[in-house]
Amino acid sequence: MPLSDIRVVDLTRILAGPFCTQLLADMGAEVLKIETPSGDPVRGQGIVKQGVSWYFAQFNRNKRSVVLDLYTDEGKKSLARLIETADVLVENYRPGVLAKMGFDQTRLDALNPNLIVTSVNGYGSTGPYVDRPSFDFIAQAMSGFMSVNGPDGGDPMRAAPPMSDLIAGLYAAFGTVTALHARGRIGRGQRVESSLTGGLISMMGYLSAEYFATGEVPKRSGNDHPIVAPYGLFHASDGMVAVAPSNDAFVVRFLDCIGLGQLLEQTDYATNERRMRNRPALNAAINEVMERKPVDHWIEAINKAGCPCGRVMNLEEVFSDPQVLSQDLVLDVEQPDGSTIRMTGFPVKLSDTPARLRHPVPALGADTEAVLASLGPVPEDRGETA
Amino acid sequence: MPLSDIRVVDLTRILAGPFCTQLLADMGAEVLKIETPSGDPVRGQGIVKQGVSWYFAQFNRNKRSVVLDLYTDEGKKSLARLIETADVLVENYRPGVLAKMGFDQTRLDALNPNLIVTSVNGYGSTGPYVDRPSFDFIAQAMSGFMSVNGPDGGDPMRAAPPMSDLIAGLYAAFGTVTALHARGRIGRGQRVESSLTGGLISMMGYLSAEYFATGEVPKRSGNDHPIVAPYGLFHASDGMVAVAPSNDAFVVRFLDCIGLGQLLEQTDYATNERRMRNRPALNAAINEVMERKPVDHWIEAINKAGCPCGRVMNLEEVFSDPQVLSQDLVLDVEQPDGSTIRMTGFPVKLSDTPARLRHPVPALGADTEAVLASLGPVPEDRGETA
Repeated sequence: MPLSDIRVVDLTRILAGPFCTQLLADMGAEVLKIETPSGDPVRGQGIVKQGVSWYFAQFNRNKRSVVLDLYTDEGKKSLARLIETADVLVENYRPGVLAKMGFDQTRLDALNPNLIVTSVNGYGSTGPYVDRPSFDFIAQAMSGFMSVNGPDGGDPMRAAPPMSDLIAGLYAAFGTVTALHARGRIGRGQRVESSLTGGLISMMGYLSAEYFATGEVPKRSGNDHPIVAPYGLFHASDGMVAVAPSNDAFVVRFLDCIGLGQLLEQTDYATNERRMRNRPALNAAINEVMERKPVDHWIEAINKAGCPCGRVMNLEEVFSDPQVLSQDLVLDVEQPDGSTIRMTGFPVKLSDTPARLRHPVPALGADTEAVLASLGPVPEDRGETA
Repeated sequence: MPLSDIRVVDLTRILAGPFCTQLLADMGAEVLKIETPSGDPVRGQGIVKQGVSWYFAQFNRNKRSVVLDLYTDEGKKSLARLIETADVLVENYRPGVLAKMGFDQTRLDALNPNLIVTSVNGYGSTGPYVDRPSFDFIAQAMSGFMSVNGPDGGDPMRAAPPMSDLIAGLYAAFGTVTALHARGRIGRGQRVESSLTGGLISMMGYLSAEYFATGEVPKRSGNDHPIVAPYGLFHASDGMVAVAPSNDAFVVRFLDCIGLGQLLEQTDYATNERRMRNRPALNAAINEVMERKPVDHWIEAINKAGCPCGRVMNLEEVFSDPQVLSQDLVLDVEQPDGSTIRMTGFPVKLSDTPARLRHPVPALGADTEAVLASLGPVPEDRGETA
């Protein structure tokens, strides 16, 4: 596997950090998830089934669990010895906490100058907000992300998935592997960092570019494209269809396909600018036609005409969709008792060294003994303070 | 820089692929953006200022532009010679198009067995939807993402930024660097792939785990947390405040802080279950207090109490925020004429080999001559077909 020569000491919990280390584990890294004696709180969150939180399972597959009590000297000594053997340390404490625990950068450098230390935090490790508690919902608010989502005239709207956590985790994984590549050339480790707010700000790309160029704050426009019509969700007889004709050529294909091509000859709909102005009437005309036939009919016909469209799917439809299944985006992980836990698959495909499931979801501390034993006997005191 | 030993031949356009290669270029890779004689269509999209689309600039900084007409034998021969010198090829054509252009996997292997070939597409390169046109809005619909976003009782709601494009691009960058690491061990290149739909499905993590465990399709709940109250957006005298007390301890801190701690002694609000049931009345009580003072007051007080909260910021507020500025998340790129283009900064920080701006935004074909000249004279015909 692509990262099977890499050992990761994983001090993260909850979500952003664990998603980073899950991505590394899926690619073959040995991830030692260091847990307190009571475990990552996510072990007790969400639905617990067959004795396991499926939410925990989704984000901690392919990892090993090692329990250390980092409030004790013994725990800290074990962590120090693991750090000596590791390539990467990942943490998502608030900035400064790892140093307070006795592992500031000087100590880490002394233990292992080749170590890559990856941090995921709320706002970055410097600046006026460095000590603030963080959370996905807050990062969605403070990145501008919420301000552009939601209906025209309505409140700003979050996305339900914890996008800032997951994007920060993904950036951290990218940064970590990039630093591993650099280590091969500069011969030492370094610090890598991503933040919930910074990651989501980077996703504002198109909208921020327009804001920088014009000084105009973008407005919310719901599902309507801010400068193209028709575009959006339309009603078929048995569900909704998303149609995205992003330029005039696609508009012609779409309207021809549903038998409304003649509308483009009318003054009211002849140009995009006029279609924008008359969007309610145009959408009503489109819905009137589309309501006569089911989603499947329209999806096939409109795609065949070359215009991007798709069903608005709920999770039941997503995870029974033939394309999603053919992409192995649903996986069942077998547990030691023979039961299985279902989860989503690998979003990055490598042809020759693919991601794969290797371990059952680790029980709390399942690997403590084996991992600590592999370190050998505790060496003589070398005068270091824990 | 971390990837400055890596050369990328970049056949992508519009968004998902260019975001992947931007991330690689920011980390120091030499990215040769191959453009048609008319250029990436994004050069003409969004606001053009100082002769440059700022949208194009945001996603194509740090790259070099090489114009090749890939409909001609000469263009294809030049591309083949560039591929021989490259570490990575990135493309976001529909599956099969690159092969039709004369560059199927056999040919690519013959040209350069060490080449990593990274593809970003709509649905993956196999499966029933492989030939469908794709688009961010459609991927938001077909991944289930839209189905969980939006108000209770309202329509499914997209996020305004093109999340599926950007997440697929970020996964592709992570996969590419991971494959570079693997190449050092297995001694050859391989194919890397991410898709708009698959990437966004992977972000459904928590929600998909709950669906898999229960079979229950998650409902939309707007900005309300589905199982915690109070939580959400509240009204201060001069704007909105996002408050995320994700467990009982945080609820106590929050309500104590705003002087409503006594509510928790009332039967109606004593437990989370009761607060959920009486959420409208509870939110009204909170808003009544918070409307008396400005956002700044509440942000400081509630954070000080240890409860995550933040201002709901629009882009003007985001890009003048002291934390965002201290994190260098706003950059000005100097152009050859002395003018500057503003864009968002680097979401991943590496301490020793950081991302940085190296080039102005490339004019169309600015590097064609230099890059082709660096290949040396065209060799004798080696009998290969273009």
